[in-house]
Amino acid sequence: MLNTKRIRDYGVNIGQMEPGKLNRITDVAAVTVGHVTLSDGDMQTGVTAILPHQGNTFKEKLIASSHIINGFGKTIGTIQLEEMGTLETPILLTNTLNVGTAADALIEYMLEDNLEIGRTTGTVNPIIGECNDMVLNDIRAKFVKTEHVLQAIANTAAEFEEGAVGAGRGMVCYSLKGGIGSASRIMKMNHGEYTMGVLVLTNFGALSDLRINGKEIGKELQAATNENNTEQDKGSIIVVVATDLPVSERQLNRIIKRSITGLSRTGSIITNGSGEVVIGFSTATKIPHEKPTHCLSMSIIHEEDIDIAFRAVGEATEEAILNSLITADSVTGRDGNKRAALKDLIVEHNISVS
Amino acid sequence: MLNTKRIRDYGVNIGQMEPGKLNRITDVAAVTVGHVTLSDGDMQTGVTAILPHQGNTFKEKLIASSHIINGFGKTIGTIQLEEMGTLETPILLTNTLNVGTAADALIEYMLEDNLEIGRTTGTVNPIIGECNDMVLNDIRAKFVKTEHVLQAIANTAAEFEEGAVGAGRGMVCYSLKGGIGSASRIMKMNHGEYTMGVLVLTNFGALSDLRINGKEIGKELQAATNENNTEQDKGSIIVVVATDLPVSERQLNRIIKRSITGLSRTGSIITNGSGEVVIGFSTATKIPHEKPTHCLSMSIIHEEDIDIAFRAVGEATEEAILNSLITADSVTGRDGNKRAALKDLIVEHNISVS
Amino acid sequence: MLNTKRIRDYGVNIGQMEPGKLNRITDVAAVTVGHVTLSDGDMQTGVTAILPHQGNTFKEKLIASSHIINGFGKTIGTIQLEEMGTLETPILLTNTLNVGTAADALIEYMLEDNLEIGRTTGTVNPIIGECNDMVLNDIRAKFVKTEHVLQAIANTAAEFEEGAVGAGRGMVCYSLKGGIGSASRIMKMNHGEYTMGVLVLTNFGALSDLRINGKEIGKELQAATNENNTEQDKGSIIVVVATDLPVSERQLNRIIKRSITGLSRTGSIITNGSGEVVIGFSTATKIPHEKPTHCLSMSIIHEEDIDIAFRAVGEATEEAILNSLITADSVTGRDGNKRAALKDLIVEHNISVS
Amino acid sequence: MLNTKRIRDYGVNIGQMEPGKLNRITDVAAVTVGHVTLSDGDMQTGVTAILPHQGNTFKEKLIASSHIINGFGKTIGTIQLEEMGTLETPILLTNTLNVGTAADALIEYMLEDNLEIGRTTGTVNPIIGECNDMVLNDIRAKFVKTEHVLQAIANTAAEFEEGAVGAGRGMVCYSLKGGIGSASRIMKMNHGEYTMGVLVLTNFGALSDLRINGKEIGKELQAATNENNTEQDKGSIIVVVATDLPVSERQLNRIIKRSITGLSRTGSIITNGSGEVVIGFSTATKIPHEKPTHCLSMSIIHEEDIDIAFRAVGEATEEAILNSLITADSVTGRDGNKRAALKDLIVEHNISVS
Repeated sequence: MLNTKRIRDYGVNIGQMEPGKLNRITDVAAVTVGHVTLSDGDMQTGVTAILPHQGNTFKEKLIASSHIINGFGKTIGTIQLEEMGTLETPILLTNTLNVGTAADALIEYMLEDNLEIGRTTGTVNPIIGECNDMVLNDIRAKFVKTEHVLQAIANTAAEFEEGAVGAGRGMVCYSLKGGIGSASRIMKMNHGEYTMGVLVLTNFGALSDLRINGKEIGKELQAATNENNTEQDKGSIIVVVATDLPVSERQLNRIIKRSITGLSRTGSIITNGSGEVVIGFSTATKIPHEKPTHCLSMSIIHEEDIDIAFRAVGEATEEAILNSLITADSVTGRDGNKRAALKDLIVEHNISVS
Repeated sequence: MLNTKRIRDYGVNIGQMEPGKLNRITDVAAVTVGHVTLSDGDMQTGVTAILPHQGNTFKEKLIASSHIINGFGKTIGTIQLEEMGTLETPILLTNTLNVGTAADALIEYMLEDNLEIGRTTGTVNPIIGECNDMVLNDIRAKFVKTEHVLQAIANTAAEFEEGAVGAGRGMVCYSLKGGIGSASRIMKMNHGEYTMGVLVLTNFGALSDLRINGKEIGKELQAATNENNTEQDKGSIIVVVATDLPVSERQLNRIIKRSITGLSRTGSIITNGSGEVVIGFSTATKIPHEKPTHCLSMSIIHEEDIDIAFRAVGEATEEAILNSLITADSVTGRDGNKRAALKDLIVEHNISVS
Repeated sequence: MLNTKRIRDYGVNIGQMEPGKLNRITDVAAVTVGHVTLSDGDMQTGVTAILPHQGNTFKEKLIASSHIINGFGKTIGTIQLEEMGTLETPILLTNTLNVGTAADALIEYMLEDNLEIGRTTGTVNPIIGECNDMVLNDIRAKFVKTEHVLQAIANTAAEFEEGAVGAGRGMVCYSLKGGIGSASRIMKMNHGEYTMGVLVLTNFGALSDLRINGKEIGKELQAATNENNTEQDKGSIIVVVATDLPVSERQLNRIIKRSITGLSRTGSIITNGSGEVVIGFSTATKIPHEKPTHCLSMSIIHEEDIDIAFRAVGEATEEAILNSLITADSVTGRDGNKRAALKDLIVEHNISVS
Repeated sequence: MLNTKRIRDYGVNIGQMEPGKLNRITDVAAVTVGHVTLSDGDMQTGVTAILPHQGNTFKEKLIASSHIINGFGKTIGTIQLEEMGTLETPILLTNTLNVGTAADALIEYMLEDNLEIGRTTGTVNPIIGECNDMVLNDIRAKFVKTEHVLQAIANTAAEFEEGAVGAGRGMVCYSLKGGIGSASRIMKMNHGEYTMGVLVLTNFGALSDLRINGKEIGKELQAATNENNTEQDKGSIIVVVATDLPVSERQLNRIIKRSITGLSRTGSIITNGSGEVVIGFSTATKIPHEKPTHCLSMSIIHEEDIDIAFRAVGEATEEAILNSLITADSVTGRDGNKRAALKDLIVEHNISVS
């Protein structure tokens, strides 16, 4: 299943840096990803869960940050992420109208693991990202239930599928089938070797804008398919960035902001339509929930080391988006709406993406 | 029931401006408020709903803004509020661990009224504010259900109760019983008379910090009750600001930020504990969901008119907080935890608040 | 002088939209641009002035907004621009260490025109953008004086030069000679035809990253010139956006943020080095300094009209950057440092940019 | 000269915490403050300089942050302060129309001390705060020159005057003579004892709003003086916060935001008029300008330690404002405009401030 061809397998190498072993967000040690895919007729949706580490995230929080590219979205949990600079739960991705359910399910999951929440300590801040999959999915039906969320969390592993799976099941990107994509980069610095991992949920863009490593593949496809797609771009993408680089929340924020360079290079004009949100965390420092008697000690890079991280996140985001497109199978969903797979179209129309 | 004595009835007049007829947020025409109160043993919680106008809020959105005083909170919906500058649903207040349920219920409510959501138009952005009522309420039980949310919306009216009701049922403010409070101010300008209304959900502060119109009532109470309350302040307040003043979203943001002056004058030091969030809207301009063929025309005040609104929001916030304290009945809840009512203590210890 | 070949003259057409008549920021009616260029040995610097309209900008302010892409910079004046949403002076561009001089000179200019400043009304907020031209210019000498600023303002016209002129005299972009560039786009909407204009001051990027309409020209040049440029990228760009589209300051902010898509597509990874700041204004609404007795009326587009502006600003920014590169002459400056002109290199090495 | 009576000498003790030895910002070790006061007829202005430490601030930067309470102001340098989280120069305060001169002078000062700026390293980010002293000072004359800035820096010491001195010479606060004030608080934590210091430049407020420790002194004074001051409040204050508490830039930002509680308690409604800006730094961590080969190690408090800092900054800000009022001598300046001294008025009208 994981033998699906990815964009590198088509000869497209994005940028100058080397990817990690899996070329996935899970190259960052201890990060795992899991999906639940709901696919049956008008139901084409799901949940994707990202575990930031394998311990108790509430008790050992991670330095985290978020960046709003376009706030026309319903992502939950970023207020506290920004104020406290920490992540204390897994990150969930799902469809827009299921964010309430997903937040409630994630709260439930956290309560079970942390009996002190709401008793001897405060509450918990669930993080939910979303895109609107209404074209292929009957989004009004809110198919995602608590058990799907819990199952997605249980399913997490270092290896995971991309394309029309999990939260990506019903998503549409550049008028093609989009969904989940991932990539990673290795960052070599004087003081060590670090990894930058990106996972995207893609649901944006008009076909004619699509570029693959600079090539105007979207226009080629539009000419070949003779389609004059005029549907309004809903412009939505969630980008999850993981790294083991020792950074402060301010530095992490600077890094994750640069994911937009990769997004832009695939052709996006970042339309009005829907939310584009980046959520990032670093596994390098764990912040204890309970106050110790002494000060915390935090290791951070000098700012002059940061350019390599800026390059890494841009490259990994660009490649992750392309992976979401090239790995996705075509899906027929609500009211028979269908979105074609890029991998099928390029064969059918004999188009080279590299 | 609405004959409860409020802070003015004790001779305390905050500031220089005149209140509206009800001295409530509902003095702003078309704004209504409703509660569902859940009170039984360990269950001391509820929902409060604010309807920004009586039409279809999704189809006729209002200029809106939010301001994060302290982001250690779980308020839902502010990302889009800021990006688009509009409010398209009622505003709900509830306990922290029920925000997922409340968001889902509000989505459900909006779907029923707007069949085009998720079909011919996009999705909807629910707004949920929260405070942590774990001292008096078994918050882990997540007592609030969809039907309570719908009932609170159905209950909305111009007249509404304050104190230990609705979302305020289990809240604790300055170590006393807190909850829901409201106040309003009339703003007279050259071009018309306008209203500023505030509703607060109070759940913050240590007793010794409480000031009523400058007087150190908290210290007096502490001396009288001989209590040395050392519980950690969770610092949470949600402030909802409504006005009919014609303002842009930028101007509205400037106005609602000034609510902190009233909050500070009651004695708050804005502790780390939990989220302090302000959400505001103006009923003066309705932004249609559907794009017209022409440009929109918007009436806004000149910036030199704005000081009167700055004064109004500070005064109304200060008075609303005091109203939440003075109207609240004492509540005994989870594990027999009890928080006294200010109105009882001042009688018992013969303290004058004016 | 204005017959210099621009990027379109090389067959490179960026994006899908049509440029305005001059394909410059000055296609927006009433906007003018002027330079003073200081070029003599170690002195390679200057000033560029943008007049937002031809009346008294202090008395008739324009809706304005700024966006910080990378805040490692010394731009002056954005705090008030954001708070008040208005521009009340010309915009000046110069070298980093001359921002104080430029601010003082602009204050002087405003005082002369507005005798009531500091007497019967408040003060004035000068806007100064900057990049660091230390490679080619002896920046420590602070060559820019008050008279240069006043002359640059006096020089403004609809026609103006690009390349190694004005504030762009000493700038370096993608390791080549950079400087001033401009472009525009026509936006056709139901309710009228509008113009989006962009002017950039470019001083960022490493040669190997340069792309022209997707083509990896930077790598070609690097191979051809056999240069292994390892100088640290200082990453600075100032983007000035002008439009006559009727927008609120929030909408304008959303628009100018999208300039980063064009910047990214030329290859930038937005390095740590120095500030990247966007400043935008709309000439559609004039906000009077003096308070009228009535409310102001403001015309704004519906949000669903905004995508065309998002596309326009991205395209115009991308083309403006390429224009800054292709129009610049080579410059030899401080300590004999030299930066080559792109237009010379592509001839010398027989490289096609289209 | 330093025997001037301060607010504590009148029996007014703000808050619960103990002040430091000098009860000034300079209780934070290594912080020094200096003034140059220009006073002659229509010239009533000056410069105040704050040195964050006694070494080379450019080479050893401090963790820093800023917070904009009201952005209707011309403070210079906060963009980079926020992006990089560091302070690399002294902080200067002066009048609004001299910010350009002051920035240029501070650049000059930094260039002299750091020959590598603009040669082997980048540029430098000057920090200038300002208030509008046009009532008492002929602000259009821009009396402050480079030599005054350099002299103010040279004058810095642990002991310094308050009131109508330095940048505070021409300022008006609550319709009385305002200017420079300072205060400090000792913060005792498990892991050590720390200091919070505040210096304010006060230039805001209408007399009737003034409260001293809750008492409505402003109304008393208004009644006593029979003055019906209707001048428009320009609302400006600059707050400089120094601490030796080990904090991240995010934590420091949370702390300095709380200065508004103290400001509010003196009666401010934060009018439209002019800028209210807070700038803070921590001396606990020095960030080297040059990149080391290893990561930096940073000590930070746990978030649950932060409430004591929140309380400290609010108390110190409130007391610093009151000190600026009570220490100021009356000043007669431009066009014979005069502002009375609080210390004179309370004697004359026999008013007790405690």
